[in-house]
Amino acid sequence: MMIAGESDLAGAPAVDPPTGALNQADNPSSPVARFGPDDSLLLDSGTRLDHLQIAYQTYGTLNADRSNAILLCHALTGDQHASNIHPVTGKPGWWATLVGPGKPVDTDRYFVICSNVLGGCMGTTGPASINPRTAKPYGLDLPVITVRDMVRAQARLLDHLGIATLFSVMGGSMGGMQVLQWAATYPERVFCALPIAAGARHTSQNIAFHEVGRQAVMADPEWRAGRYLDNGGSPRKGLAVARMAAHITYLSEPALHRKFGRNLQDRDKPTFGFDADFQIESYLRHQGMTFVDRFDANSYLYLTRAMDYFDLAEDYSGRLANAFRESPTRFCVVSFTSDWLFPTVENKVVVRALNAAGASVSFVEIDTDRGHDAFLLEEPELFDTIRGFLSSAAIARGLG
Amino acid sequence: MMIAGESDLAGAPAVDPPTGALNQADNPSSPVARFGPDDSLLLDSGTRLDHLQIAYQTYGTLNADRSNAILLCHALTGDQHASNIHPVTGKPGWWATLVGPGKPVDTDRYFVICSNVLGGCMGTTGPASINPRTAKPYGLDLPVITVRDMVRAQARLLDHLGIATLFSVMGGSMGGMQVLQWAATYPERVFCALPIAAGARHTSQNIAFHEVGRQAVMADPEWRAGRYLDNGGSPRKGLAVARMAAHITYLSEPALHRKFGRNLQDRDKPTFGFDADFQIESYLRHQGMTFVDRFDANSYLYLTRAMDYFDLAEDYSGRLANAFRESPTRFCVVSFTSDWLFPTVENKVVVRALNAAGASVSFVEIDTDRGHDAFLLEEPELFDTIRGFLSSAAIARGLG
Repeated sequence: MMIAGESDLAGAPAVDPPTGALNQADNPSSPVARFGPDDSLLLDSGTRLDHLQIAYQTYGTLNADRSNAILLCHALTGDQHASNIHPVTGKPGWWATLVGPGKPVDTDRYFVICSNVLGGCMGTTGPASINPRTAKPYGLDLPVITVRDMVRAQARLLDHLGIATLFSVMGGSMGGMQVLQWAATYPERVFCALPIAAGARHTSQNIAFHEVGRQAVMADPEWRAGRYLDNGGSPRKGLAVARMAAHITYLSEPALHRKFGRNLQDRDKPTFGFDADFQIESYLRHQGMTFVDRFDANSYLYLTRAMDYFDLAEDYSGRLANAFRESPTRFCVVSFTSDWLFPTVENKVVVRALNAAGASVSFVEIDTDRGHDAFLLEEPELFDTIRGFLSSAAIARGLG
Repeated sequence: MMIAGESDLAGAPAVDPPTGALNQADNPSSPVARFGPDDSLLLDSGTRLDHLQIAYQTYGTLNADRSNAILLCHALTGDQHASNIHPVTGKPGWWATLVGPGKPVDTDRYFVICSNVLGGCMGTTGPASINPRTAKPYGLDLPVITVRDMVRAQARLLDHLGIATLFSVMGGSMGGMQVLQWAATYPERVFCALPIAAGARHTSQNIAFHEVGRQAVMADPEWRAGRYLDNGGSPRKGLAVARMAAHITYLSEPALHRKFGRNLQDRDKPTFGFDADFQIESYLRHQGMTFVDRFDANSYLYLTRAMDYFDLAEDYSGRLANAFRESPTRFCVVSFTSDWLFPTVENKVVVRALNAAGASVSFVEIDTDRGHDAFLLEEPELFDTIRGFLSSAAIARGLG
């Protein structure tokens, strides 16, 4: 196993100048843990993945007991750049408001780790990574991966960093799925867990929206059956459409109404054409176009597929409570009233299972009209909940 | 004005053998009303459309008083084939269960008319129709049309058929928008009106989903800036993706869960690939693929745009009640509990405005988990409501 340098960026900008997303897949501006051919990862598909590499960021300092580590699990289109300036977009990380000195996830107290998920495109092995067997990007030759595979890879990273037990694992959406999987697979390694706006399975409607996105990517002739990187192309239009469709599901109807309503974009009257007359159209097109500059289309296929396959109960004889039997972990489950992608009812399924398993669990449903995306926003009740839950757990853990 | 033959199909199959959708645009298997160059239609865009043609079907017999006519307004992807066998698909019309002898819309009592909307692709002037100026399909040279333009064209058809007043106008979704527009524009021509699962405006979220669909079509290189018909092609993949995304919005999450859940399609285990592992994926792909065989991609752009532009209050100083001031029409507004595309709250806005205008209005919210699509399904309470409302109005109208 080769060991790359560890970072302690603590919210500082990445050292390297911004580079294109494609360069990040193999040579990211983050520290990388590289695992050799003798250290392969057995995937749920039955395939072994060798030459695994994991890109990650850390914030804060690991204490002498190695007991203050928090793992952040990112969502579908997130990455390891949770609290530093993003090397491709130049913008603050996706949880920069939450994670930092004095913030709810206080990097003066905790050592925070965030790694790019398996199947991602920011430095951890994914379809845009070079396949050591062919010296070309994997494309669809990468085995399909699952949320459990992502978590297994993260466990390898923790071994590599010498961290036996996490003080906490937390994340929203696909990140919340990983949190639940962590608690199920490695209960003894998780002191407390915070799944936010997630669920123990992907519903039929969730799968449907993902399938639309995948079909949009694969309908683009530039996709070239997944081999677009060989000639430097990319299914930009298809991926932008996928992102637009997904983005609607991240917002609530009331939030869309409040933000955009039927307002026209830079005009007094409709143009009677197919330009972006309405602000919502202009906004969605912008979301689609900026996304393709920072994300790999095949990664989008792999990660949506991993979410679709997620059904935690299935691995435990169909009874979700069995996944948490005798769990020593303290849980705090958070949902948002206006989230229709991972609605409260799906979060309550998790809470009921945890109670049935006799686990320690608190549940907070936060009243907001901001929809699923609320987990990425400066939502006061979310911030208070996270700060309070971590502080209380820190006392129980004996952290100063 | 040229006058084409009138039909009296009364639910019988179309006479002509099934033909391709493209042939239907100019030479449909329905009767057609053709309007000459001196009989142009002034559109909301300010443009005049001449050589207008309108394809329609009728069922039942017009009485001597010409007082028993019901106009059915079809939804986005519907057409005039409401109760006969569809000439392209070979399947029963979209309201064949509701409209016929002895059925709630009883063709033994009523003379039922259904015309293809302006902008459609089944025989009424639309982007796939031949532009008389160029002898080629209009494509994007057709002016953008509105719901009010559709209604104006329908009024021309009624003039042509010698029908001064409609006993009733009814329809769901985009059809319900036309119903409301009819009552606002021609109150003296509408005895009773039945808008179902509609609203007085398209919301921001509605516009957003339509914009995704349009972008999917326009991202397909086969779209060729709208000129695909010139070389016999069609943006099939883009239109299929648009249809898939839209189709999700027509169904409720509970209905998807009940019908498909996370069931796998013809297999015991996931394939760890990008095939349609789940039944919901297979279903959506089928919906996308069958749709492109019967619908024109540019029509999809025009009709979604017309819906986006719909905001009835806007034409009445921003006060919806003004649209129905002193209306003599009897209204029955119907919504479905699980419809999240045109939810009850949007239907109630219409009901409140009608009450504020002092109109005669009843409101029925039907409890069903079938989502927006419920208006096309054999929903007992919907059928009872329609039968009862029409019967009561028929007595008031003096129909035997």
